[in-house]
Amino acid sequence: MTPQSENFSRWYLDTIRKADLMDYAPVRGCIVFKPEGYELWERIQQAMDKRFKETGHRNAYFPMLIPESFFQKEKEHVEGFNPELPWVTEVAGEKLEERLALRPTSETVIGHMYSQWINSYRDLPVLINQWANVFRWEKRTTPFLRTSEFLWQEGHTAHANEEEARQETMQMLEIYREVVEEVLAIPVWKGQKTPSERFAGAVDTYSIEAMMKDGKAVQAGTSHYLGDKFAKGFEIKFLDRDNQLKYVHTTSWGTSTRLIGSMIMVHGDDKGLAVPPRISPTQVIMIPVGPPNKRQAVIEKMDEIFFALKDAGVRVKTDLREETPGWKFNEWEMRGVPVRIEIGPRDIANNQVVVARRDTGEKVSVDIDNAVAAVQQLLEDIQVNMLNKARAFRDANSHTHINSLEELKAHIAKAEQDGTLGGWVLGGWCGNDDCESKVKEETSFTTRNIPFDPPVEKDTCICCGQKAEHTVWFSRAY
Amino acid sequence: MTPQSENFSRWYLDTIRKADLMDYAPVRGCIVFKPEGYELWERIQQAMDKRFKETGHRNAYFPMLIPESFFQKEKEHVEGFNPELPWVTEVAGEKLEERLALRPTSETVIGHMYSQWINSYRDLPVLINQWANVFRWEKRTTPFLRTSEFLWQEGHTAHANEEEARQETMQMLEIYREVVEEVLAIPVWKGQKTPSERFAGAVDTYSIEAMMKDGKAVQAGTSHYLGDKFAKGFEIKFLDRDNQLKYVHTTSWGTSTRLIGSMIMVHGDDKGLAVPPRISPTQVIMIPVGPPNKRQAVIEKMDEIFFALKDAGVRVKTDLREETPGWKFNEWEMRGVPVRIEIGPRDIANNQVVVARRDTGEKVSVDIDNAVAAVQQLLEDIQVNMLNKARAFRDANSHTHINSLEELKAHIAKAEQDGTLGGWVLGGWCGNDDCESKVKEETSFTTRNIPFDPPVEKDTCICCGQKAEHTVWFSRAY
Ligand SMILES: [Zn+2]
Ligand SMILES: [Zn+2]
Repeated sequence: MTPQSENFSRWYLDTIRKADLMDYAPVRGCIVFKPEGYELWERIQQAMDKRFKETGHRNAYFPMLIPESFFQKEKEHVEGFNPELPWVTEVAGEKLEERLALRPTSETVIGHMYSQWINSYRDLPVLINQWANVFRWEKRTTPFLRTSEFLWQEGHTAHANEEEARQETMQMLEIYREVVEEVLAIPVWKGQKTPSERFAGAVDTYSIEAMMKDGKAVQAGTSHYLGDKFAKGFEIKFLDRDNQLKYVHTTSWGTSTRLIGSMIMVHGDDKGLAVPPRISPTQVIMIPVGPPNKRQAVIEKMDEIFFALKDAGVRVKTDLREETPGWKFNEWEMRGVPVRIEIGPRDIANNQVVVARRDTGEKVSVDIDNAVAAVQQLLEDIQVNMLNKARAFRDANSHTHINSLEELKAHIAKAEQDGTLGGWVLGGWCGNDDCESKVKEETSFTTRNIPFDPPVEKDTCICCGQKAEHTVWFSRAY
Repeated sequence: MTPQSENFSRWYLDTIRKADLMDYAPVRGCIVFKPEGYELWERIQQAMDKRFKETGHRNAYFPMLIPESFFQKEKEHVEGFNPELPWVTEVAGEKLEERLALRPTSETVIGHMYSQWINSYRDLPVLINQWANVFRWEKRTTPFLRTSEFLWQEGHTAHANEEEARQETMQMLEIYREVVEEVLAIPVWKGQKTPSERFAGAVDTYSIEAMMKDGKAVQAGTSHYLGDKFAKGFEIKFLDRDNQLKYVHTTSWGTSTRLIGSMIMVHGDDKGLAVPPRISPTQVIMIPVGPPNKRQAVIEKMDEIFFALKDAGVRVKTDLREETPGWKFNEWEMRGVPVRIEIGPRDIANNQVVVARRDTGEKVSVDIDNAVAAVQQLLEDIQVNMLNKARAFRDANSHTHINSLEELKAHIAKAEQDGTLGGWVLGGWCGNDDCESKVKEETSFTTRNIPFDPPVEKDTCICCGQKAEHTVWFSRAY
């Protein structure tokens, strides 16, 4: 496996193949989510779905094919997505009169349906989420992070007024932060996207942004306040309490299978994956050690502990294959299982097992009678430690002292020279699109978001030196 | 709402719209699964998925687009599905060199991947399931039962030998029977499809078949033993223990959103839906009755019972809208909620509530202190009763005394004349395709399946009068 320091993206591609998370599909830019990879997605789905339902949302399913004319109804939307669409033009042996797009996102078809479902203030709010496959045919693809077909959830809500819709937008962004930090152990910055980075057709786009181990950013989730743009495009009107016919205010918000890729790039190391306990398909792997002729007693004791852990709700497996313990240790470390239990004849004699943690590599002996409680505590500790470690890494690679384009260029040049990471740079921004695009052109750092709660406030624009209107994260991004 | 006896299919279409389960989509033959309809699917998914995992299967996700050449690799498969396929021919502004089909089922792409994943007997069995959207562009569509796009699960397994693969085929058929009977309360016949009704490319197809209230059949699930046909088409070979290179034996099995439609057509009546408790999004609806000026005390007591039920895991809702109790009773009966609780000032004075069941219409008074246990018991009773009722209906409309084509025609003519149901007819079959198609042409009754455990064995072919090789269910079908 290529070390991270040598070539991060090769390390990534090696790791996801070796850990059996995915395979390349026969269609360009598409991947197969293999069971080990798909189960990560299932656990993300569970964590998200639970919170969506607790906040009053319900799931629905809208058709995948969208008539071409629908894209024309919101001008910015069609410009944003048209270049990336696959089109169905023939069905069952006949040419279609109107081409059908494979959905890149469902605002248009959902807008069309909402216009029929919403008539009165009594019908509001509409709070619907969809789990679905979507298509965006992009030039460069990276497994999980950017693929021609991917899996996601897209929430679509309609409200009687702006205030409620904006509250919804923020509520869902906070749910994303919570799942990504607490379940995936990925620290994020919540903030607002700049106008040039907005979702096609949104009034305001908000995101959570995460730093990968190569210092690049991933937009891990977005929540959009769409104002009445789609309502006007699709004539979604309601009779309000005051007997006035009004347009609804809509929101949409999405997270996708790119969260799998982010999790890998945040926690993985040269041994392979490192998966936070709350998301790991397997939380504990049990491996017998010591001379094979004493294996029988070991296996019996292992079984005992195995079922005790299982009964306690721990996702545990045993590895009894005919390989050396060392080979198995490497294998399961590569797969990122958070806790390993080693057990041999000597351990049994002492009524102990050895417990090793993936995040720190530490090994401790634990009394067998206390093993379940100890493992449960350890899983919690690892979950917390992985978030803390990721946050420390992120903060160590976040730079807040850079005040001009020259300084930014120098910073990037120095990092390249030293073989360190450019990381993220917190800069002031005057709000002018030209300054944003000049930074991008000259450094390939793009604006990530305007964090709600930046570590410091910056006074002057990193590009033009004028008064800063916003404090913005700049970085390279996936 | 159109009564069932007047026009069953109009009753069905009225009911699913009125109960807010679906809406028609802007693309021909596609529907929107609205939250009330989609939640039925979510509960079916949970029931299925749990059992798939308990039997060692894992979920994965394969790409939706399938290159045209893949369909050519299994001759019968391409003939079976080619006429129904939508094709992507343009992507991101460019014509594709090879057309891509929207999957009608995934044997081909999965076969392609398995050929790369399977090398040794150690890699077997492969036990994978996929939850996905699929496309079959059929001429006539019926919401849930037959739509251009639908949702389903498709299991695909690969085994070292025929015996194991056949065991898998039967195991999954039994899981389908269990979920459909025990969760959806739909009685089914397990059996084998005749060769003409086999899945395109299968060696043997098995099904569970259910009778709707109009006497027609729905194929509610299928499980296929594919032999080595796809293995040969896609070169899925493995090195066996004996050092021989062999083809794997594969299976596939599927159930879909047509289970929603079946559930409605089996249990619904002229009041609307009737949903079995185990699948119902809402199990209990609480409605206040009596004079509005005494409402406050009633609502407080309702809240108490509401939370007691909720804590006990019952899916309960209250309806406090400003409508009459009678209007609400009708509304929730139409939506098929199994249990209604009525509570008014007089009930509170007697420390009682009135509990009404949707399946029988019965009302009883229940002591408030005992309400939770009584409701839980009632939900169990309703679940059992709905299955029994459906089984009694099915058996009353199943005819085993018909021995010739003339008798069958007379039976059908008489049913039409009397305005009763033709139902199902158990007939002998010599095994000859011509007899099967003659019955179909002359009566529009088709073979459903050859039940494993028929109520009686038939001696002579219903068509030619020769010795019967099989005892077969014949009926009209969706
Ligand atoms: Zn500036
Ligand atoms: Zn015959």
